[in-house]
Amino acid sequence: MEIELVTIGTELVLGFTVDTNGAFAGQRLAEVGVRLARRTSVRDDPAEIRAAVAEGLTRGRLVVTTGGLGPTRDDMTKKVVAALFDAPLELQEPIWDDLVARFAKLGRPISPTNRTQAEVPRGAQVLRNRRGTAPGLWLAGAPGEVILLPGVPYEMRGLLVEEVIPRLVGRGSAGAAIVSAMVRTTGLPESAVGERVGPLEAELAPLSVAYLPGYDGVDLRLTAWGLPPAEARARLAAATDRLRAVFPGHMYGTGDDDLAAVLLAECRRRRLTLAVAESCTGGLVGGRIAAVPGASDVFLGGVIAYANGVKEGALDVPAALLAEHGAVSEPVVRAMAEGALRRTGADGAVAITGVAGPTGGTDQKPLGTVWFAFAVGGRVETVRVGLPGSRHDVQARATQAALHGLWRRVTALG
Amino acid sequence: MEIELVTIGTELVLGFTVDTNGAFAGQRLAEVGVRLARRTSVRDDPAEIRAAVAEGLTRGRLVVTTGGLGPTRDDMTKKVVAALFDAPLELQEPIWDDLVARFAKLGRPISPTNRTQAEVPRGAQVLRNRRGTAPGLWLAGAPGEVILLPGVPYEMRGLLVEEVIPRLVGRGSAGAAIVSAMVRTTGLPESAVGERVGPLEAELAPLSVAYLPGYDGVDLRLTAWGLPPAEARARLAAATDRLRAVFPGHMYGTGDDDLAAVLLAECRRRRLTLAVAESCTGGLVGGRIAAVPGASDVFLGGVIAYANGVKEGALDVPAALLAEHGAVSEPVVRAMAEGALRRTGADGAVAITGVAGPTGGTDQKPLGTVWFAFAVGGRVETVRVGLPGSRHDVQARATQAALHGLWRRVTALG
Repeated sequence: MEIELVTIGTELVLGFTVDTNGAFAGQRLAEVGVRLARRTSVRDDPAEIRAAVAEGLTRGRLVVTTGGLGPTRDDMTKKVVAALFDAPLELQEPIWDDLVARFAKLGRPISPTNRTQAEVPRGAQVLRNRRGTAPGLWLAGAPGEVILLPGVPYEMRGLLVEEVIPRLVGRGSAGAAIVSAMVRTTGLPESAVGERVGPLEAELAPLSVAYLPGYDGVDLRLTAWGLPPAEARARLAAATDRLRAVFPGHMYGTGDDDLAAVLLAECRRRRLTLAVAESCTGGLVGGRIAAVPGASDVFLGGVIAYANGVKEGALDVPAALLAEHGAVSEPVVRAMAEGALRRTGADGAVAITGVAGPTGGTDQKPLGTVWFAFAVGGRVETVRVGLPGSRHDVQARATQAALHGLWRRVTALG
Repeated sequence: MEIELVTIGTELVLGFTVDTNGAFAGQRLAEVGVRLARRTSVRDDPAEIRAAVAEGLTRGRLVVTTGGLGPTRDDMTKKVVAALFDAPLELQEPIWDDLVARFAKLGRPISPTNRTQAEVPRGAQVLRNRRGTAPGLWLAGAPGEVILLPGVPYEMRGLLVEEVIPRLVGRGSAGAAIVSAMVRTTGLPESAVGERVGPLEAELAPLSVAYLPGYDGVDLRLTAWGLPPAEARARLAAATDRLRAVFPGHMYGTGDDDLAAVLLAECRRRRLTLAVAESCTGGLVGGRIAAVPGASDVFLGGVIAYANGVKEGALDVPAALLAEHGAVSEPVVRAMAEGALRRTGADGAVAITGVAGPTGGTDQKPLGTVWFAFAVGGRVETVRVGLPGSRHDVQARATQAALHGLWRRVTALG
């Protein structure tokens, strides 16, 4: 059985709200092999809702709606679908009692308009909503089958995962799953990733490979379409290992692994502490590291040396060096890293100084020029790169490159 | 005339890709009063594409598609729609020449499969795509009217704004616009914002007010539905002024104004420089400030004092103070701010120390406890707050609160 998802809300159609419910439902259904055939968004308008639901039923599909179950005048999905099924709405006392108890617990007065939330089309199955006031409803009858879910994302997601998908799987609507795995690489452009993966694609088949470039690198999504779940998982695991072998120093993780967390784990294993000295990134590298839970046993801190005075005063960069070579230079970035080690007592450090733009570029140091110094294992290595894009792009890429450089050098310590 | 948008791509339906094209198109069309009636996403499947386009035409609507115009086997929109219009595909030499020139410029070989991109259904109007290889196409005939746009977001957006919307407006398809304005507040919970705005809603009518809470505060979207554009703009401007008056110290901007940029502008006007001393935020405040173009005339930098040793060594926080009161305390945060001023020579500073979690909370200092010190105008004020949520939530809210506290105090300098 195929499914059509109808998300209801004028704000969705106008684009004021991005339809994250649709993406969530698509992913969860695909994982268990329930085939989502179409997604539609319509306005809060009874005729539009009715048309979208009825069309899906005409195509012989199970229709899942989200939105339009609340007590306000905009919410009309239940009425429209009940009419399609010729099912009168009936007050269900247990739902009403539940609502009264919930409002009492919150210390809020319950209003008569809330009574509509306790009304159920005759014959519908009620899906209990633990997270909100509008229960889900499952109608089956002559026109076909419709499941009504609330539009509030965490309510909808809870009901989908806890109530809807288990029932679909239980009655055999689930089929061969669409299962995917993510491989995360950094430090290589998409073309270089493609050159290494391209020759393997035949070997990886029937898995498909999608290239997903972003600031943090190129992610590869491997997808198994319609294989038995155990075979799909085994193939995905083997393919992940195969890719690990072709991306040494670049593949830092799988799934939603974060490079900062991977770096911290490698440091923790070696009992190393880290510090940063940031100019053009202004604290973004420290922020990425500090965002990882438990960062404090590795990360000591550092200096945001945005102005030259701070490079001198807080990192001991000699004024003469700044005057002679400029703030964006090899000697200065090296001195920044050495200053960070000395001032914080950390075992390792990264220093970053560059021209993020939008102004300040020169012929010798065009916009996007960034110097890094990596102080790891008792030596300092410096690297110059030219990063493309806007100020935001340069800062985001420089932040990732700083973490990448540290990770490569820490893992190389053995 | 109403429009239906059909976004094409299996990845969209599966939820692997979030449909940002749909939201963008909805907003841009609404702004000029072109009524978007429905959005549909279908798989890369000729029958599905054909059904979705044909249904929209049957409803008498102009159908806009995105996706499926590239040269790969997955891209079949043009063929399907040409068949609906009974229009043979014909190679257009000028498009082919354009493609050849574009590939030559990129130094890439052009492949025979690219020839399909130069094929145009007979009678279709070609919309030149300056950003990519697949032109947009506009078909009008017996079945109705269909506009084909590529799926790559920046190509689709360029064509929509530069080619499609001007033509729709030009021929009178645009009507009374839906125009909205954003008012940005911070430092008040949604309920408090609601208490101030609620009594004004009758006065603001017919504008509607939507509450959009987030980490950065509560945004208010004011929307004028179907008013003449000049009246809509005048009412939105008046309403924005009215709200400014009820949110002194909290409404920091409109549209997509960023609090860090607003703060920098206020400092620049007063020729003040700023520094930061960050513990639990680990550089996020500095990162937010450094992300603003031109930050360097105000922002000097500061210290990421994540470990106590760095608080002592780089900010001169006395070890005795840390031992007696702990790192998350009023005396320590005050000493951090004073150290930041002294070490950087800045005119103003913010210091932040707190318990971001997920562990480390105590009865006296539960998770989410954050101390701020604001050094502005020659005095240091300290504030303790309890922030809800995960580590990420606490860090994000603390970052915004740090910028908010600085902004309030800098603007109060007059």
